[in-house]
Amino acid sequence: MKKYLKTDEWNIIEDSFQADRMRWSESIFSLGNGRFGQRGHFEEPYSSDSYRGAFVAGITFLDKTRVGWWKNGFPQFYTRIPNAPDWSSISLRLIDEELDLAQWDVDSFNRRLDMKAGISYRDAEVTSPRGNKLRLHVEHIANMAHPNLCLIKYSVTSVNYTGKVSLVPILDGDTANPVRHPDEKIWNILRSGTTNDCAYLWTQTRREDAQICYAMTYRFFKNNKETFANPIRIEKEKQAGFSVGTEVKPGDTVTLVKYIAIASSLYYERQDLIEASVAEARNAQSTGWDALEQEHRNAWQEIWDETDVSIEGDPEAQQGIRYNIFQLYQTYRGDDPRLNIGPKGFTGEKYGGNTYWNTELCCVPFFLLSTPKKIAENLLIYRYKQLPKAIENARKLGFDHGAALFPQVTSNGEECHSEWEITFEEVHRNNMIVYAILQHATLTGTLDYIAHYGLEVMIAVSRFWSQRVSFSQPKQKYVILGVTGPDEYENNVNNNWYTNYSCMRCLETTLSFLEIIARQYPDEYARICSITNLNYTEESERWRDIIERMYLPEDPERGIFIQNDGYMDKVLQSTDAIPAGERPINQYWSWDRILRSCYIKQSDVLLGLYLYYFNFDRETIRRNFEFYEPMTVHESSLSPHIHSILAARIGKVEKAYQLFLHATRLDLDDYNNEGDQGLHITSMPGSWLAVVRGFAGLQIQGGTLKIEPVIPEKWSGYSFKVNYLGNTLHIQVGKEIKISLTAGKQLNIQVYQNVYELKQGLDLTVNRKDLS
Amino acid sequence: MKKYLKTDEWNIIEDSFQADRMRWSESIFSLGNGRFGQRGHFEEPYSSDSYRGAFVAGITFLDKTRVGWWKNGFPQFYTRIPNAPDWSSISLRLIDEELDLAQWDVDSFNRRLDMKAGISYRDAEVTSPRGNKLRLHVEHIANMAHPNLCLIKYSVTSVNYTGKVSLVPILDGDTANPVRHPDEKIWNILRSGTTNDCAYLWTQTRREDAQICYAMTYRFFKNNKETFANPIRIEKEKQAGFSVGTEVKPGDTVTLVKYIAIASSLYYERQDLIEASVAEARNAQSTGWDALEQEHRNAWQEIWDETDVSIEGDPEAQQGIRYNIFQLYQTYRGDDPRLNIGPKGFTGEKYGGNTYWNTELCCVPFFLLSTPKKIAENLLIYRYKQLPKAIENARKLGFDHGAALFPQVTSNGEECHSEWEITFEEVHRNNMIVYAILQHATLTGTLDYIAHYGLEVMIAVSRFWSQRVSFSQPKQKYVILGVTGPDEYENNVNNNWYTNYSCMRCLETTLSFLEIIARQYPDEYARICSITNLNYTEESERWRDIIERMYLPEDPERGIFIQNDGYMDKVLQSTDAIPAGERPINQYWSWDRILRSCYIKQSDVLLGLYLYYFNFDRETIRRNFEFYEPMTVHESSLSPHIHSILAARIGKVEKAYQLFLHATRLDLDDYNNEGDQGLHITSMPGSWLAVVRGFAGLQIQGGTLKIEPVIPEKWSGYSFKVNYLGNTLHIQVGKEIKISLTAGKQLNIQVYQNVYELKQGLDLTVNRKDLS
Repeated sequence: MKKYLKTDEWNIIEDSFQADRMRWSESIFSLGNGRFGQRGHFEEPYSSDSYRGAFVAGITFLDKTRVGWWKNGFPQFYTRIPNAPDWSSISLRLIDEELDLAQWDVDSFNRRLDMKAGISYRDAEVTSPRGNKLRLHVEHIANMAHPNLCLIKYSVTSVNYTGKVSLVPILDGDTANPVRHPDEKIWNILRSGTTNDCAYLWTQTRREDAQICYAMTYRFFKNNKETFANPIRIEKEKQAGFSVGTEVKPGDTVTLVKYIAIASSLYYERQDLIEASVAEARNAQSTGWDALEQEHRNAWQEIWDETDVSIEGDPEAQQGIRYNIFQLYQTYRGDDPRLNIGPKGFTGEKYGGNTYWNTELCCVPFFLLSTPKKIAENLLIYRYKQLPKAIENARKLGFDHGAALFPQVTSNGEECHSEWEITFEEVHRNNMIVYAILQHATLTGTLDYIAHYGLEVMIAVSRFWSQRVSFSQPKQKYVILGVTGPDEYENNVNNNWYTNYSCMRCLETTLSFLEIIARQYPDEYARICSITNLNYTEESERWRDIIERMYLPEDPERGIFIQNDGYMDKVLQSTDAIPAGERPINQYWSWDRILRSCYIKQSDVLLGLYLYYFNFDRETIRRNFEFYEPMTVHESSLSPHIHSILAARIGKVEKAYQLFLHATRLDLDDYNNEGDQGLHITSMPGSWLAVVRGFAGLQIQGGTLKIEPVIPEKWSGYSFKVNYLGNTLHIQVGKEIKISLTAGKQLNIQVYQNVYELKQGLDLTVNRKDLS
Repeated sequence: MKKYLKTDEWNIIEDSFQADRMRWSESIFSLGNGRFGQRGHFEEPYSSDSYRGAFVAGITFLDKTRVGWWKNGFPQFYTRIPNAPDWSSISLRLIDEELDLAQWDVDSFNRRLDMKAGISYRDAEVTSPRGNKLRLHVEHIANMAHPNLCLIKYSVTSVNYTGKVSLVPILDGDTANPVRHPDEKIWNILRSGTTNDCAYLWTQTRREDAQICYAMTYRFFKNNKETFANPIRIEKEKQAGFSVGTEVKPGDTVTLVKYIAIASSLYYERQDLIEASVAEARNAQSTGWDALEQEHRNAWQEIWDETDVSIEGDPEAQQGIRYNIFQLYQTYRGDDPRLNIGPKGFTGEKYGGNTYWNTELCCVPFFLLSTPKKIAENLLIYRYKQLPKAIENARKLGFDHGAALFPQVTSNGEECHSEWEITFEEVHRNNMIVYAILQHATLTGTLDYIAHYGLEVMIAVSRFWSQRVSFSQPKQKYVILGVTGPDEYENNVNNNWYTNYSCMRCLETTLSFLEIIARQYPDEYARICSITNLNYTEESERWRDIIERMYLPEDPERGIFIQNDGYMDKVLQSTDAIPAGERPINQYWSWDRILRSCYIKQSDVLLGLYLYYFNFDRETIRRNFEFYEPMTVHESSLSPHIHSILAARIGKVEKAYQLFLHATRLDLDDYNNEGDQGLHITSMPGSWLAVVRGFAGLQIQGGTLKIEPVIPEKWSGYSFKVNYLGNTLHIQVGKEIKISLTAGKQLNIQVYQNVYELKQGLDLTVNRKDLS
């Protein structure tokens, strides 16, 4: 954990120029609006280490699978979101010189990301090799109100320079994929060109034909006065744009506003792409910066009104949690079930921009609780649409009768990952999808989704388990052999407790909703039975038998669940035993050493206790936490918030707080030394969940919303809004607990042991208890 | 198992043209002489499916490691033997037509590999699209007496054609790597050219600078009369050679003899390569075909005199075992400790031509027993030379204090394989090297190798185990976690019985030789202690403790050893339960399905019983055999002969015979449907071992050579020579057992329960017993 940034409750501020941490800074200052996004690289060229990256939602590239030794069942292709042509480029030229912060002296430097407004600012004072001093001011907006629109305001003030200044805004199709495939050119240019006022670049990915078209317009100002600058058109094979210049003297300021419209074949007919993007860029130009900025600010305000968590007395935590919410919403707008959330969002190519179980584990519960919008439902529909491919995926691995294995990694529903221990064996992911469906029903109180979509998924997943378990003669129990559990630092193990347990619960969920839907949606039930060929009697009997006779490894002496067979044979020691300078261990240890160590990458048994919280008593949770937490290295971003939540629930509030900080400032403080590759987008909701489900202790038990707030020592209070059964509650925790209903009419809520009736307009106040 | 070839005791015969099995045929008819080798593709171009492959010993290429997800500890490079420029090419041209068996009618076709002489013959009658009929006769020799020399005699007889016939012998540097990297060009041409009588091609691998130079001369005959044919020189950028033609009429025969000298930078200074190869090609031309062929036949006769196994009453087995010996000697001459034996030898690119533990498991015992030459010793010196890299390799994985992990796959001593479950975890390979050293001492009766080389290897390997084992609190035993045993259809298991057991025996061997060498070679001992920094007291104590408290999984009820923790939880069923059409399972099942099945790729527990035979009683071997054999799919070529040997030892002679046939005719009958990729060179000695150690039951027990012959029903007798303590014995098994000493003076031999004294000139005859 390091401190590179200034602490501020609404802003991310970097107040010095750190060339050696450029990639990390670029990750941190990433901007997006759910339809597109880009890393926070400079608009102008930068000739030193940097990772320029720009991404357009839903535009993917089918890369050939690359493995050392092919294994039967590997997919042919790896899908990934390609680094898109660069829409943001603006060069700054003087006579014979061009701005390049790697070559010029940087006399002062400040970057600020205003999270409330969703605007990034960059200010710098620079001196060129010839001694020309300039002041730079840049504003950058990925417009939340206009999903196709990116806006950049680029201002230069001469301090001592006299002569011509040119600003060169272009659309640049000559993009590489700097991280994994630096030599690879993915984009074919279909057409590019300029008119008097507008440039466009129409591109297509190699092999498939996903298409993107950019159009840009601009305005040019000298000392805040619009100027017609007789632009030179730039019309290269892979670039289109303008060079706009004027003479300046010291004190003069020139400003270029670049309006970029980004349209893709996901939303437009191919033949309309140029026209649509050009029209939108021209519209933006005529609407103008101020109006567009205001609409953008309003859109952000709406999000903050719903999801903001206010923390009193801890600006670092406040900054972190807002940063997480901000980055998540920059990645996913929630309005398109064809889209999902890549682990790095639009901040890097790692994980290929694909969908992982992270979505169901972290994002779905966040969206379900934090907004009345149907964002989570869209994420669930995404999986439902991919059910046929999940069935196909299972078939490739030898399963039949409609069994589904949802992919570990995918964008189009086909598995695209090729590590056998993950692709074929990290099968617990299947349960998380069923769990997310269950959560949707529990928190929204509606069954329509399950009747129309979810039950089919449940049946297919249950069929998978029915075939995946086997019966052990020595144990006289069902076992699940050869899996990788959530802790990916164990591979190909037998009887991962979490997998076995969640398999049981998954079968149970299916059985229970089969009954409910049969009763409440008889027509849908008939339809589902027919299309799935369900043999209820036989299949449900098998599922029940598995539930009854599932093997669950336990250590009766310690009173804990055992992560998997063989775990207790390891040398058990806490993470303190890891030599200094060897963390994260995945950057220092060979894989076999990691595997045979006791160290746990991410919550595994504890994940089960988190997800199925009410099935375990507090002492059981405490014993397991005290056993497993000291051996957990949290080298997955999915881990700290879950430990934090459990710690808060068992009264270890300060431990919970440490883990919360880890979850919350993972990227801002670069805990795992990998921020250069991008941000941990999909685990960002973890910090919100840690507050709401951890510190506030919000749970649904037997249909009742329940909270049991605790508060870290450092905080004087915290508050948030939460949604349940169509109601929105505002919950403030301080010395007292205040609860008000901001939407919805009436709701019972249990606070600690007592149940209260909440009504709109009547605030509830309860004393906070000490639970430690 | 299929029958594609005619059965013949000394020949491999293909008597029809099978275009759909061309790659397999090319593998079968591969030719080599230990310095170079090539697949049996046609000399002339063939425009349909084919895999032209040629390889030069010790010339490797460092390919970048290709993996999906990088794991810490993976090597940067994968070493592989590249497909060399083609030295054998000869085109046949008529007016406007060129011979191509894919396009011409093949009226008759016969290929024959004479294993006794080491010559392949090809005869065909062909008709061109224009109706020209020719008869073709080709002879091909990879000269065993002249390791740089390849000889090809290419004859064409006109049946109905009148006009010019040209033969075009070239050296072709435009080689691709057809199997894994079809687009890749590895060879840079340094220089090529022709003189009046000679052409040469000097090439170098990209990136590194291993070099090969070929030179060729030729003679041209018309109706057996040498003709000066006014050749046209072929001098292209990547090709050098000649076009030699003459007019023919029906009945005329033209013959081209191509003499190719193949020199590499492993044996020559780079600047001398052209001169040396040209001189050798010219010499060959002047020596002439007949003399060179005779020297070649003599060299093969020497090999057969030592190693031939004669089997009476079973031509298929006879053919198979000779084929195996033939192919092994084609791959490895045994005279250069810088070379080793790739699993596919010179018959294909799979496995990169690298060294695997196959060498120590199969080849070393064969060479130790079958020849008095120091071939096995050279293979052991190869490993000793790589000890520093093995220590380096272990260090990369976190081991220290001189611990060594010999690579799973290597050519230069560095690990070059990148599958974590193999590279990092199939660590039992370390023991096989120590075991081979022990065998060398046991069978030769000399300790020099151990004193000068072997003990250092033993210490380094023992240090590896000392760090690799860990202590299990629940078991109160040493355990070895996270390994892949010999059965590669289980990955990352705990306490693989074979690994644990062989680890103990390995430590024991080291301890015992430390004492012996200290006593018998005090100077060497002092040297070794000093360079290894051996702390005898402390280290030997630790090793003894591990031996005493090693965990060995057993099933007391069944009276068997358990392959690894968790194995008994599997659904245990015989290979009969595998659905028809799904074998080999590795071509049909996904990897996870294979892993969680009970099916065993290759002998695992049974390998331990084979290697440490005298530590187990016959009943224990029988129980384990009866438990594991039915679940073994033998999808590794290392497996059947070991099962065969054990089966013979426990009286299951007909089972042993079936397994022997599998081991012996694996490639000839293409058991595993992969003969197209090349032959299973390193496991070929298995058939010889199956006869000698299996049917004849040859073992060394307490320093005494012991045989317990049995005989398969089909056979009337078998005989072989074997070497022990500097003696050579000829053993004939029929109704009686006859034993004679063909070299050496005197030796005791135990036959069944009785010990006899053998003396040169006095044959021993003993009645054969029925042991079943």
